[in-house]
Amino acid sequence: MHEFDQVIALTPTPDGGCLAHTSAAYANMIGPFGGATCAVLLNAVLQHPDRLGDPVAFTLNFTAPVADGPFRISARAARTNRSTQHWVIEASQDDGVVALATAVLALRRPTWSDTEARAPQDMPAPDSLPRMGTQQRPAWVQRYDMRFAEGEFPQAFDGQEQIHSQSRLWLRDDPPRPLDFPALLAISDSFFPRIFIRRRRLSPIGTVSITTYFHADAQALAAQGDRFLMGSARAHKFHNGFFDQSGELWSHDGQLLATTHQTVYFKD
Amino acid sequence: MHEFDQVIALTPTPDGGCLAHTSAAYANMIGPFGGATCAVLLNAVLQHPDRLGDPVAFTLNFTAPVADGPFRISARAARTNRSTQHWVIEASQDDGVVALATAVLALRRPTWSDTEARAPQDMPAPDSLPRMGTQQRPAWVQRYDMRFAEGEFPQAFDGQEQIHSQSRLWLRDDPPRPLDFPALLAISDSFFPRIFIRRRRLSPIGTVSITTYFHADAQALAAQGDRFLMGSARAHKFHNGFFDQSGELWSHDGQLLATTHQTVYFKD
Repeated sequence: MHEFDQVIALTPTPDGGCLAHTSAAYANMIGPFGGATCAVLLNAVLQHPDRLGDPVAFTLNFTAPVADGPFRISARAARTNRSTQHWVIEASQDDGVVALATAVLALRRPTWSDTEARAPQDMPAPDSLPRMGTQQRPAWVQRYDMRFAEGEFPQAFDGQEQIHSQSRLWLRDDPPRPLDFPALLAISDSFFPRIFIRRRRLSPIGTVSITTYFHADAQALAAQGDRFLMGSARAHKFHNGFFDQSGELWSHDGQLLATTHQTVYFKD
Repeated sequence: MHEFDQVIALTPTPDGGCLAHTSAAYANMIGPFGGATCAVLLNAVLQHPDRLGDPVAFTLNFTAPVADGPFRISARAARTNRSTQHWVIEASQDDGVVALATAVLALRRPTWSDTEARAPQDMPAPDSLPRMGTQQRPAWVQRYDMRFAEGEFPQAFDGQEQIHSQSRLWLRDDPPRPLDFPALLAISDSFFPRIFIRRRRLSPIGTVSITTYFHADAQALAAQGDRFLMGSARAHKFHNGFFDQSGELWSHDGQLLATTHQTVYFKD
């Protein structure tokens, strides 16, 4: 069983909710990798008997640190329309709610389609790029094979401030795993905090809120399989304790699969 | 009293919630302008006695059409930390929840700050640009003075497809009103659906989910006052019934005040 399938695994509870468990394989510096928390909360919707359609939008607010161990998830369809469905999902531990999410699901229908965003340019083939080292990094980083063309995680926090925080990379699960919605969502939170890239200083940070929009249907995910995705990420503004960053995830052949945005607390 | 103050006005109810009312001044083609709905839900947090700090992130899912008339708002602080606070806000009418929002508030502290995004370039002075006509437009459009440098709302839906959906404009409330958080949030939903700009065809659309990140504190809003803001917006991908768009709002002197993202349902 892939470690990712373990981290999104759910055990139903008699009250109609379910139980999840953090995994050492996806540990962050403190507590679990946020992308894993997103993925398991989305999975609680996708496995719910009331589910209608596939995810279009997902937002999660990290309300408090998640302690290593079990946590409860409750997922509730707040509104089901003809072709869209709105979910509220809460994760809680003993002392209260630790993550609060909403998801929009929809039945998509074929329409006129077009992509205005441009895929990352001048990307060398993944095989021609070195894999980022994962030594002395949190466990979750080892779960991804990341190959940077630009804006890599600093080898050393030398305080050499960069002129921007833009990254371009190839990435996928390690070991490779066929892409699905929870995995794509987790990957959307795998862009390192832009302040690390920009300032090359280790400062306390924490994502406060993340939103991911899905542009792929199940067919597009199946077509991607377990190949490398292209990712790009950048910051807009760092200001008095918070910064925001936006990213894009593209298929191996240049289809935009997801756009993602987050605001991050930082201390300096 | 400014029409905007009327549309965000709240009447407390005995159960600890409050009552709001749609306003003909902010009517959209069907139901109210979504930005007004966002603003009044945020206002329910800002006026709440438990409020801690100022808004950092706000997400609203439009779960069902809002009927003209009164609606109930309940705002609950799901978690209050030392310097951040997480809110869940619901608006409901007789037949259920019509809008579901979360807000993150925070006490900001001075830190290293920098803006990586670039303000719209080559913007002529607002006085040198014509105001967009508001005849035969929904009422809410008349509440804003919009002056486009690029990507204006089409004079006619002539079906002449454009090469992109990028807009750059000056905009402010009309009549002018000193900027505050609810007004900035409403303005963040005032970028027209990109599909209208791109395809110059009128098709049924509806925002499904919007997220706005605030980069301004109360001081920055006070410094802006009632002057014109600069705005820019673009789409990433239109695909099988949904597209996403991102926008930025800048102060008159080029400070990034907010970034905003949404996913929109469309039919063609």
